[in-house]
Formats: sequence, structure tokens, C-alpha cells
Amino acid sequence: MKHLHLVVVAAILGILTAHADPLPSWNNSASKKSIIGYVEKVSTVGSADFVPVEARIATLDNDGTLWSEAPLPPQAAFAFAEVKRLLPDHPEWKDDASIQALLNQDVAALTADHGKGLLDIIAKTHTGIPVDEFDANVANWIATAKCEKYDRPYNQTVYQPMLELLVYLRDHGFETWIVSGGGQDFMRVFVEKTYGIVPQQVIGSYAGVKFEMKDGKPTLTKTLDTVFLDDKAGKPEAIHRFIGRRPIAAFGNSDGDQAMLEYVTIGNPYPSFGLIVHHTDGEREWAYDAKPPASGTLVTALVAAKEHGWTVVDMKNDWKIVFPELP
Amino acid sequence: MKHLHLVVVAAILGILTAHADPLPSWNNSASKKSIIGYVEKVSTVGSADFVPVEARIATLDNDGTLWSEAPLPPQAAFAFAEVKRLLPDHPEWKDDASIQALLNQDVAALTADHGKGLLDIIAKTHTGIPVDEFDANVANWIATAKCEKYDRPYNQTVYQPMLELLVYLRDHGFETWIVSGGGQDFMRVFVEKTYGIVPQQVIGSYAGVKFEMKDGKPTLTKTLDTVFLDDKAGKPEAIHRFIGRRPIAAFGNSDGDQAMLEYVTIGNPYPSFGLIVHHTDGEREWAYDAKPPASGTLVTALVAAKEHGWTVVDMKNDWKIVFPELP
Repeated sequence: MKHLHLVVVAAILGILTAHADPLPSWNNSASKKSIIGYVEKVSTVGSADFVPVEARIATLDNDGTLWSEAPLPPQAAFAFAEVKRLLPDHPEWKDDASIQALLNQDVAALTADHGKGLLDIIAKTHTGIPVDEFDANVANWIATAKCEKYDRPYNQTVYQPMLELLVYLRDHGFETWIVSGGGQDFMRVFVEKTYGIVPQQVIGSYAGVKFEMKDGKPTLTKTLDTVFLDDKAGKPEAIHRFIGRRPIAAFGNSDGDQAMLEYVTIGNPYPSFGLIVHHTDGEREWAYDAKPPASGTLVTALVAAKEHGWTVVDMKNDWKIVFPELP
Repeated sequence: MKHLHLVVVAAILGILTAHADPLPSWNNSASKKSIIGYVEKVSTVGSADFVPVEARIATLDNDGTLWSEAPLPPQAAFAFAEVKRLLPDHPEWKDDASIQALLNQDVAALTADHGKGLLDIIAKTHTGIPVDEFDANVANWIATAKCEKYDRPYNQTVYQPMLELLVYLRDHGFETWIVSGGGQDFMRVFVEKTYGIVPQQVIGSYAGVKFEMKDGKPTLTKTLDTVFLDDKAGKPEAIHRFIGRRPIAAFGNSDGDQAMLEYVTIGNPYPSFGLIVHHTDGEREWAYDAKPPASGTLVTALVAAKEHGWTVVDMKNDWKIVFPELP
């Protein structure tokens, strides 16, 4: 009798699981149907479009795709907070053009000349220190800083529908990789808790590290050698370098992701999937394509999406909620 | 009654599994005991030295650690075979110093000036072509070429005891990463079949790839930009770049692996393990430390092994067999 009970309970659980909506924060739109249709067909044994599990690799941009990049990409907010924290120790910064532009909130000066000022700020706050110290700085910041616009910690400015998508993909055998223009070392500090993604599945922009034995102890120090920007053509190039096989699904939100989506979806021997998160929600988040606060424009990728059949998510109409409930 | 049978069968299987030797090609030596002692203690729930599964990362050198690097690292044999295959299409190579040194088997000329000639050969056979074409070249070679000394295909010049170690590590929750001076793109073609290691867990030396849309098709072409040599200090630096967390176990065979073993074993917050494969078997394989055919010397790492308690495998006495039985 006891066994019978267990069997019944198991059967009911099975039915519930089968019928549970894997993407509850998505409205029942064409976008949602395209995601589920694709994931089901490549992961169902016996399906004509079945893809072996080792080839089920998905690559996802981060800023503007998994979390909000507006009004500023969170990593810029981190760099700004670091400058303020470090200011008392650097009297020489009173004559530094980038630092002064930052303190005067002179966005034009910071972003001029392909963001040279911004990169200089990144250099001053991200290099010349041991990786452990940098990790601790990021961890402290993420634990304490808040995004003013949304009045929530930055690791809560992630998109709830995309968190569900990550879990849904992994539940169907996908490895979920981040391929972002953001700093690799920066993201790796919090991605595991925030997205359930291990550090070794995070590709981003990076510079060098220098290994040395100091007083008999191994140390890795962050440097500015071999700067790699993981954007545009850099994304498929980095995917080749880090993963070494072509993903079958890619997710982005800007022209910076177009090369990655082309690489993944055009001429792929496996059935593939491309998706663009379109920021159409001026009320709950932002509505932008090419205009600020876009940190990357969305112009050519929107044209390419139509040409190549990529799913374009309309944030305003496709998502029931944008951010997760605060814990 | 039927159920009772199943229970008994399961219990017997359990006992058999528990008592099966996970490293049957290893003699019952101190090396074997140190491996099993370490793996058991970090993977047994409740053990004082238990390490959570996400931190169980092992990094292993390839040439001389997982497969034979003597008389020549197999990748050099591949490059030489490629030169011979391509020779008819390159009449200009008759005036090329590196090519002529190669054809005359002038090892001194090839390896002079930090192996400049050898690197030139690598450049001529490994770059300027689409990655797919390179992959096909490697696949064709590995399917047809034979190592003369052992009269077996190169993917059968792997060490059977190390194949068992890889499986044993993975069975205990470890991710097994290759961190090799060999070419990343070269290794990734065959590691999955040969070692059960997916391409995205292979770190090696690499140069650039260039992404372009050609006639509407995405192409990745191998270039000589941003050459990275994954050796010595480059190994911990690459581990940081690719994995982003410190491994807890490292395996190598030369001074080129010393920095990696130091990084992994000195001051690691988790219990860690270092191992050096010492080539002591002049009969079944080779006996070499600093002398040819070592592709990397083993001098300082042998001193460091004593200092830091790394296991030094004596191939001659610790291994029952060296290579797997041919299929």
C-alpha cells in the first residue's frame, strides 16, 4: 500500500512537471513559442532535428541581454565607485583628465575617441593588483551597491524571463555560456550565484595577468597586456578560442552581437537559433535602439534578424515582468 | 522474491564496484596510493578534506604527460607531414631555410634561436586557412599517420595508466582540463575521442582567428596574430584566462609545468595535489630528464617536487603497461 502511494505521488509529480510552464514570466507570444519549439525539437530523442547533447551550446551576451545596461552598464558604475573609493590615495588624480571627466560626470569627454577616457578609468581600477584583490573589490561592490534607477542591487537588475530561459536551456542539456563585451574577471565574481553559470563558461573582454612567485607564493597580477575586446567580430573569434566548437543558439541585444548570431545561425550543420532582446519598454526599463542609453546600437542586427529569421523579443509585450521579485 | 533477488544483485554489484581497482595499469606503489588517497579524501562527503564538486578542477599537461612526446611531439610530426603534402604547391619553398632544414632533417637548424625554424614551419602549416580546413587536415593525419618507433597511430601513443587516471578523476566529480604547450586547435580535433575531454576543456598554445562574412557565409581564418605560448608562467596565466578559478590538482612532466603545479599546490585554500610523470623507462618508452628527446627539460621541477610534496611517477616501476592494447 505504501508503495502504491509512492507510485501515485510520483505519477502526479510527473504530470505536474510535464505541464509546468518552463517560462512563466513570458507572455504566450510568438517569441516564447519559437524558443520552446526550438529547444524541444533539438532535445527530443527521435526528433528529425535532434542535436547530440555535446553540441548543445548556447552563447548569451550579458549587458542588455541578461541584465540591464541602462542608464550605465553596471561595470562602469563599479569603475566609478572604485575611483571614488581610491581617490584619497591618489592625489595625482587631480590633474588626470579621465578622472576629472568622471568626477564632473562629463559623459561626452569620457566616451569621446572611442571611449578612451572610459578605458583609462577601467585601467586605473581593474589592473596593477592581484586577481584576488580585484575579486574582493567586485564582491564588496556587488554586495553593497545599488542601481539608483531601479532601487535594487545590480545583481537584481537581471531579467527574470532570461533567468528562466537559462534554466530551461540547461534543463534540456544546453551549456549556457556568457559571451559579453563586459570584463571577464568582473563577471566571473558573481555569475555563479546570479545566473547559475560557472566562471569557466564566461567569456568577456580581458587583458593580461602576470604570474610570479613572490616570497615563495604564487601570485597573479592583472596587467594591461594583450587587451582583448569581446565585441562584434571578437565574439565569434573568442568563441573559437574558448569553446572550439560552433554553438547552436545565440542570444544578444545589439549590433555588437550580430557577428556572433551570424556565426551561430548561418550555415550551421545543426538546427540553430538566434534571438535579439529588443528594448521596447520605456516604462518598466528603457526603449532604445540607437539612441542613449544604449551602450551598443541596435540597427543592423535588427535588419539581419529579419533576413535570418532570428526571434526578436519585444520586452514590453513579451515579458510579464522584467526584474525578479526582491528577496 | 523477485525484489529480494534484485536487492542481492545490487548489493553484490555494489561490493564489486567498491573493490574494483580504478587504476588497474598502475602497480601498487606509493604513487598510486597517493593518487587514490587524495581523490578519495576530497570527494568523500563528511571527509575533513572534502572539496565541493564545483572546485574539483584538475589540469593536465599533454605532451609527455598524457601521450608520448618522444622522439618528437606528435604535432611536429603533423607539421612535417603537412609540409611534405603541400610541397608540390609551393615551388618557392625550395629557397626557404626552415623548409629546407626540415627536409634535410637538420634538427639543429630547426631548433636554433628558440625554435624559430620550427615555429616558422608551424606558421606555414597551421595558419592562413579556415579553421574547418585545418580541422580536416588534422583529422586526416591522425586517422592515417603512424608513430614509427611504436608502430601505432599517434592517438594510440597515449599512456594507458593516465587514461585510467582521467576516468577515475571524472568519476569522482573532477573536470579534467588539458593545459598544454601544444596547439589548442590541433588537440581539440581528437581529444574527445582520445581522452574523453571536450574541446572547451582544452587550453593550449594559440594564435588568432579572423572572423569575416564571405559571400554571406561566416568564416574563421587562422592567423598569426596574438601568438600565445602556453608554457611555464603562461600556464597559470592561461588557467586564469580560461577557467577563472584555481584548480586543485595538476599533472605535468617537465619544467614547463612547474609554474602550473606551484600555482595549484602552494597556498591553495583547498587540499591540493601535484604530480610529475618522470620518464624513467628506456625500454618501453624513454628515459630522459634534461637530455634529448625531452621536448622540455625536467630539472628544477624535480627539485620543486621534493620541496612541495608532489608525487613523482616512476614510469618504469609504477606502470604495469605504458600504452593501451591496440584495438
